[in-house]
Amino acid sequence: MAKTSALIEPRLPRGFVDSEPADIAAIEQMVAKIRHVYERYGFDPIQTPFFEYTETLGKFLPDTDRPNAGVFSVQDDDEQWMSLRYDLTAPLARYFAQNYQDLPKPFRSYRQGWVFRNEKPGPGRFRQFMQFDADTVGAAGPESDAEICMMMADTMDALGLQGKYVVRVNNRKVLDGVMEAIGVTDEAQKLTVLRALDKFDKFGFEGVEDLLSGGRRDESGDFTPGAGLAPHAVDRLLRLLGRDDMGKGRLGPANRAMIEMVLEGNESSDLVVEAAQELSAMIDLFEAGGYGYDRIRIDPSVVRGLEYYTGPVFEIELTFTVQNEKGQDVVFGSVGGGGRYDGLVSRFRNEHTPATGFSIGVSRLASALKLTGNLGAAPVTGPVVVTVMEKDRIADYQKMVADLRAAGIRAELFLGSSKNMGKQMKYADKRNAPAVIIQGSDEREQGVVQIKDLAEGAEAAASITDNAAWKTERPGQYSVPLEEMVEFVKQIPAVAAWMKANPK
Amino acid sequence: MAKTSALIEPRLPRGFVDSEPADIAAIEQMVAKIRHVYERYGFDPIQTPFFEYTETLGKFLPDTDRPNAGVFSVQDDDEQWMSLRYDLTAPLARYFAQNYQDLPKPFRSYRQGWVFRNEKPGPGRFRQFMQFDADTVGAAGPESDAEICMMMADTMDALGLQGKYVVRVNNRKVLDGVMEAIGVTDEAQKLTVLRALDKFDKFGFEGVEDLLSGGRRDESGDFTPGAGLAPHAVDRLLRLLGRDDMGKGRLGPANRAMIEMVLEGNESSDLVVEAAQELSAMIDLFEAGGYGYDRIRIDPSVVRGLEYYTGPVFEIELTFTVQNEKGQDVVFGSVGGGGRYDGLVSRFRNEHTPATGFSIGVSRLASALKLTGNLGAAPVTGPVVVTVMEKDRIADYQKMVADLRAAGIRAELFLGSSKNMGKQMKYADKRNAPAVIIQGSDEREQGVVQIKDLAEGAEAAASITDNAAWKTERPGQYSVPLEEMVEFVKQIPAVAAWMKANPK
Repeated sequence: MAKTSALIEPRLPRGFVDSEPADIAAIEQMVAKIRHVYERYGFDPIQTPFFEYTETLGKFLPDTDRPNAGVFSVQDDDEQWMSLRYDLTAPLARYFAQNYQDLPKPFRSYRQGWVFRNEKPGPGRFRQFMQFDADTVGAAGPESDAEICMMMADTMDALGLQGKYVVRVNNRKVLDGVMEAIGVTDEAQKLTVLRALDKFDKFGFEGVEDLLSGGRRDESGDFTPGAGLAPHAVDRLLRLLGRDDMGKGRLGPANRAMIEMVLEGNESSDLVVEAAQELSAMIDLFEAGGYGYDRIRIDPSVVRGLEYYTGPVFEIELTFTVQNEKGQDVVFGSVGGGGRYDGLVSRFRNEHTPATGFSIGVSRLASALKLTGNLGAAPVTGPVVVTVMEKDRIADYQKMVADLRAAGIRAELFLGSSKNMGKQMKYADKRNAPAVIIQGSDEREQGVVQIKDLAEGAEAAASITDNAAWKTERPGQYSVPLEEMVEFVKQIPAVAAWMKANPK
Repeated sequence: MAKTSALIEPRLPRGFVDSEPADIAAIEQMVAKIRHVYERYGFDPIQTPFFEYTETLGKFLPDTDRPNAGVFSVQDDDEQWMSLRYDLTAPLARYFAQNYQDLPKPFRSYRQGWVFRNEKPGPGRFRQFMQFDADTVGAAGPESDAEICMMMADTMDALGLQGKYVVRVNNRKVLDGVMEAIGVTDEAQKLTVLRALDKFDKFGFEGVEDLLSGGRRDESGDFTPGAGLAPHAVDRLLRLLGRDDMGKGRLGPANRAMIEMVLEGNESSDLVVEAAQELSAMIDLFEAGGYGYDRIRIDPSVVRGLEYYTGPVFEIELTFTVQNEKGQDVVFGSVGGGGRYDGLVSRFRNEHTPATGFSIGVSRLASALKLTGNLGAAPVTGPVVVTVMEKDRIADYQKMVADLRAAGIRAELFLGSSKNMGKQMKYADKRNAPAVIIQGSDEREQGVVQIKDLAEGAEAAASITDNAAWKTERPGQYSVPLEEMVEFVKQIPAVAAWMKANPK
């Protein structure tokens, strides 16, 4: 047995958390809805293990501040390095290449699972979190990108977020083409430009202009160096985001008009023209499927960080406002994103293999649904608790529990050492029990049990103020012959509801 | 893009595997049945993360042959060691201690999840595998142990294994008491004795006698050193397993008689007497609940390896026979086990905290269910495939897919680059599609679609041998007005079955 001096403090490493029953149930309901949409679209599940060879995963993580570059790695006994997966895309590329011969092509799959980042944890930033991905490998045309976007819109609808989201779509080739045209070819400078454009939602035209040119000083006085572009180059990029001659925004035109805006002044760039054609083909499909501008929107300010994207990129933005830590109203923002990554599978196969996909951040989406009231948040219905009044009659009480369970009722025997009635009632309360069964010596002699309907009792307690009346009426408490116990308990609303939701 | 020289081989580290859609669905169905039983018993789910501090997990793993003692460990940036969980019991002990104030006591929980062992992988032995645990913390009496055993029996019944399993129950104090009485006090010798007894199923009385005394040489000539016990000590242990005066077995008496046998000659051992009382109390509850000797059986040969057990121990044995690698008939054996571990939580809390629980090996149980035909093994129903006959009409085909999906039908557009009909049919076949939709220029002009019911077509193909008749009749192929497509597809049996199983 433990000595005081040797006690271990029960705690978790930073960035890891436990989940409680109500959270688990809510996430499960949410995930089931997402799965249903994905399966309706013809996607099938696969599961890959948590470990992959480190070289399999590659180095596609955004900026990291840890020695082993953002991933958890261990060396196997044959000296090879393995890492815990940091997303669900790199393992899919490996899986597709490994099972190439046997898979249908194009290959649609979805994957739901935990991923790990060896990063500094912070508020709402965990080192283990769940992603839910869907990808189509082996389809080159924009119809597969369009399908992913429509599936995301349908997913948001299925979750009850009608009118509260927009799927924003861009094409990486637009930015690549314009950067090429204005002479931005250095990788580091490219990254600075992309990051600057990515800040448009936050800082607007002025802030992005600063970040593209000399740099930007924020309210606190901190200075972020800029990309150092000349005014005409900055102007071309800002026109892409919709700045007009007067420095005002033109954002918000319908999808077809947005394509015109993207092309404007960039007609000589092959990449931009190609991107415009792809986006245009996607719009055809959105329109044919009845997905309007209110649900899926072309938006040239969408950047997406990961360097492996090669074509269309998309993200889901939740458009309702929440208060940030400073009490300001801000839009909730992104709950997932994706795009086309035609180069990832060809790391394993000497053949061009197009692919496109989307990743939802499950915890972040759950937080959003909690805010909108679309996350199942009902407390878990507890079991009917059979109390223990006479210690030497445990086998009799156990028999009652067994009978309740055999009828499909959630039930348990009070297993604590206390035979104190108050403590057992307190336990039943904490368990959110719908009812309590009591049989002391009096009831035993009469061949009955006392059944307390706790919800009914609680409701009555709220209305009856007279102590004497309470004691006479005993609301929610019934004396029932033992042989009728099971049928009586089945009729209690919370019990009936649980049985309906959990058929045998 | 990749160059041949730089290609990475797509493969997994040894001991890790991918899962396919049919396996995932089968495991999910199995797990849902287990969960339903556990929830009916009043157990609620919790989830703990994959990482724990290494000191939290402790060193409770059986024999390991790896440098870091069987677990995967990494050092955090504050120098502290964290490890991937190797079971679901140690994390529960930490969770209970950490949330002690808020939890109902006794605390029933179940946990389903992946665990990791850094061991040499082998056939059927993985480094990542799934466990499904249920535990009651804070209940000291044998009624909580009995409840776990009955729940395991009900779980096996729920999985369709009636008559094919037995829950075997022993008490660690029986062996501890007898070993104390015969003077086995050295930890290493104790372990040798326990391992010898654990081999009873495999080697019988003779083999165990050898292992308890001088040692055992197997058929291949390999020698296993024995525990070096004197004949009277060996005899007392073998009597416990049911050997009579003539060296024959008496195994198989009903549960009450088994207790007598355990006590026989050990009446002076307090530990054995205590164990007999606990087992006796458990039998009372089994009988009250109607669990006969055919389902739950007292069996003094049950050992269970983990050193933290302190009282009753149990395991589920599947009793049907399978052929081993030598072609011999052997019983399938254990698919899970557990017991009472009163010392584990007190590593964190300076207070006695009794606990008991059970762990099912999910993959091993799934293999067993596959053998008995109780694992859902139906291939996953694929989507209705809308083929692409005219490349410039993708938006029209997309509209058909959208209409099918909107009606709750699993459907997809063929996204491959080939417009060859044979290839698209081959794809539909590989996807296990119930139907294929075709609209070429002829059908378009007539305002119809061709619908191929693939199951009906395959059935007809088996009976029609005349090629000419086939071409005239075109079994399973229908020409349907476009506006009636959705209603027609809904009537196809495989489509209707999928819709019923996956309501919107």
